[in-house]
Amino acid sequence: MTEVHQARRAVAQREVAVLGADAALVTTGVNVRYLTGLASSNAAVLVAADGQAVLATDSRYEGTARRECPDIELVLDRNIEPALARLAIERGWRTLAFEAQQMTVERHEALAGRDDAVRLIPLGRVVEELRMVKDEDEIDLLGQACAITGEAFTQVLGLLRPGTTERQVAIAIERAMVDLGAEAPAFDTIVASGPNGAIPHHAAGGRELAAGDLVTIDCGARVRGYHADMTRTVAIGQVAGWQREIYQLVADAQAAGIAAARPSAAVADVDAAARDLIAGAGHAEHFGHGLGHGVGLEIHEAPMIGSAKPGTLQDRVPVTIEPGIYLPGAGGVRIEDTLVVRTGNGAEGSARPLTTITRELLVL
Amino acid sequence: MTEVHQARRAVAQREVAVLGADAALVTTGVNVRYLTGLASSNAAVLVAADGQAVLATDSRYEGTARRECPDIELVLDRNIEPALARLAIERGWRTLAFEAQQMTVERHEALAGRDDAVRLIPLGRVVEELRMVKDEDEIDLLGQACAITGEAFTQVLGLLRPGTTERQVAIAIERAMVDLGAEAPAFDTIVASGPNGAIPHHAAGGRELAAGDLVTIDCGARVRGYHADMTRTVAIGQVAGWQREIYQLVADAQAAGIAAARPSAAVADVDAAARDLIAGAGHAEHFGHGLGHGVGLEIHEAPMIGSAKPGTLQDRVPVTIEPGIYLPGAGGVRIEDTLVVRTGNGAEGSARPLTTITRELLVL
Repeated sequence: MTEVHQARRAVAQREVAVLGADAALVTTGVNVRYLTGLASSNAAVLVAADGQAVLATDSRYEGTARRECPDIELVLDRNIEPALARLAIERGWRTLAFEAQQMTVERHEALAGRDDAVRLIPLGRVVEELRMVKDEDEIDLLGQACAITGEAFTQVLGLLRPGTTERQVAIAIERAMVDLGAEAPAFDTIVASGPNGAIPHHAAGGRELAAGDLVTIDCGARVRGYHADMTRTVAIGQVAGWQREIYQLVADAQAAGIAAARPSAAVADVDAAARDLIAGAGHAEHFGHGLGHGVGLEIHEAPMIGSAKPGTLQDRVPVTIEPGIYLPGAGGVRIEDTLVVRTGNGAEGSARPLTTITRELLVL
Repeated sequence: MTEVHQARRAVAQREVAVLGADAALVTTGVNVRYLTGLASSNAAVLVAADGQAVLATDSRYEGTARRECPDIELVLDRNIEPALARLAIERGWRTLAFEAQQMTVERHEALAGRDDAVRLIPLGRVVEELRMVKDEDEIDLLGQACAITGEAFTQVLGLLRPGTTERQVAIAIERAMVDLGAEAPAFDTIVASGPNGAIPHHAAGGRELAAGDLVTIDCGARVRGYHADMTRTVAIGQVAGWQREIYQLVADAQAAGIAAARPSAAVADVDAAARDLIAGAGHAEHFGHGLGHGVGLEIHEAPMIGSAKPGTLQDRVPVTIEPGIYLPGAGGVRIEDTLVVRTGNGAEGSARPLTTITRELLVL
């Protein structure tokens, strides 16, 4: 993967030059991983406008860094930021663009307050924006994570019966994902049954599933750093009229959102395609979150798909589309897939699903 | 638990007054949890010198906050810090002490750059220092987490044989902890076999255990937010002379460290009690980390026990004591327990173990 990371750094270097900085001091963990290949809880990378790059980490990660990042100059120091600042000064890089969205006030002052201080200017979300458009290797890893997610979900369907607790379901899915090759769950699995389904981020708890429940399960696997995200709502035993009605509405809204998620589409328009359907049925206030988000090295990353969000979709941008209806005290439905936006063969392109479990209402 | 949290906030309020601030704006997640009882990924609390306190979180946590924190004024807003800053201004609290070790430069500028800006001064690690001395309820939760850890370790001893991979051992321990009632593992379980044992924070990987290996297992359970931490090194099949020698040295060093960990002991002296033994045997450079650390709502928290660390131990401070010897290319030994420092009945006190698995070398 080293050529991939060199190519990513080359793009970042051009952005650094545009900013008028001598180098970017990248300190956000996933951004460091994206630019170097090193996954570490204590690493930073200097990406200089002149084409050099220097990775700093501590001795715990020395072996991994030498193995995974043989093409990049390595500094071993427990205090990664001061070490890189010293090195920058030695090389005459006086203006460093830093990640103000990640660096704490305390660490910033420790850098800015040095005698022969470097000048620190904000880098902004330059690396986050580079990360938005994926290469085919990244899309392949997302595809693997999504396939494991679907298979794990299928394996636990037998557990979805009265008497099983939400937490038992969550644990079973997470274990199945790991047994199928995930390095870990992508996030804490949500299992929200009955009235808990009205809480979009309900933590799986001790409530037992009961006949007549809708149960919303939001889960995903992580494979080599890449996160899958999928939600299905199933019914236990029987389905009331109101349940079938909101399920169909959410399913239709999701289909409309997916149809709208094409290259060059404004994210606000994609959100509206789904939201207008739900609002038109009188449920505007029961869909309180955005329609979706990018996925990759983070479970939530650019682009955010919402009514007030800027920007457009592009080729090779993976996103979730996840409308929901939440009725306080009664229950809820959410249907979510991870898809990748693609240009078409002469056509206008489409969003292709990476999660492929049926979206029909399963009654178990 | 609400009286407990009120009492904690009362102590914090006095510190705020000493600093000359009108209120502390506490934004570190575990500090918010410590002062209010609310575990949330998006919450902050204002603790005013005049005795008031206001908790801010978003609508996802409304139900939990109303149930867990009925005694504290609640503000529901997605943007928790600006919401609390506005409220502070309304109440005439102009000087806010903030956590510079947690707040990013970007969020700090958004607060400091407001028209009718509040004045922001550093709070320092006031809440972290309060958290160091635990109450009996906290020690009880740590004890539960440590008991689960020991039981899970015992349950997987049968897996420790040639052919099992490090990752299989790690997954089995983590699943056993959850089955025994842990909410989650306290951290990613370390299983470092054979030469990997020379890497203190080796990630459990695909290496198969082999006869003649030392295997270091570092694991812990989390119970209601409180973290256990325990390490044992076992031998597979047979034990070479050099292995037995370094094992005994580490065990003796740990016993010396535990004996030194009494109320009023300087942490540097506790570190020295163990380190001098290892250094005296010629292994100074093979023990590259500190002797231990506090545990509680974080897996690593104050006090840090190291040769250059300040401070003394006190009654009701839980710490780990974890010396190790790491021989590059060959293997390593680490033995770690979680203990709680206690004053004695008329005597000088002692550190009492919460993890109680035998420290004799197990040959499996």
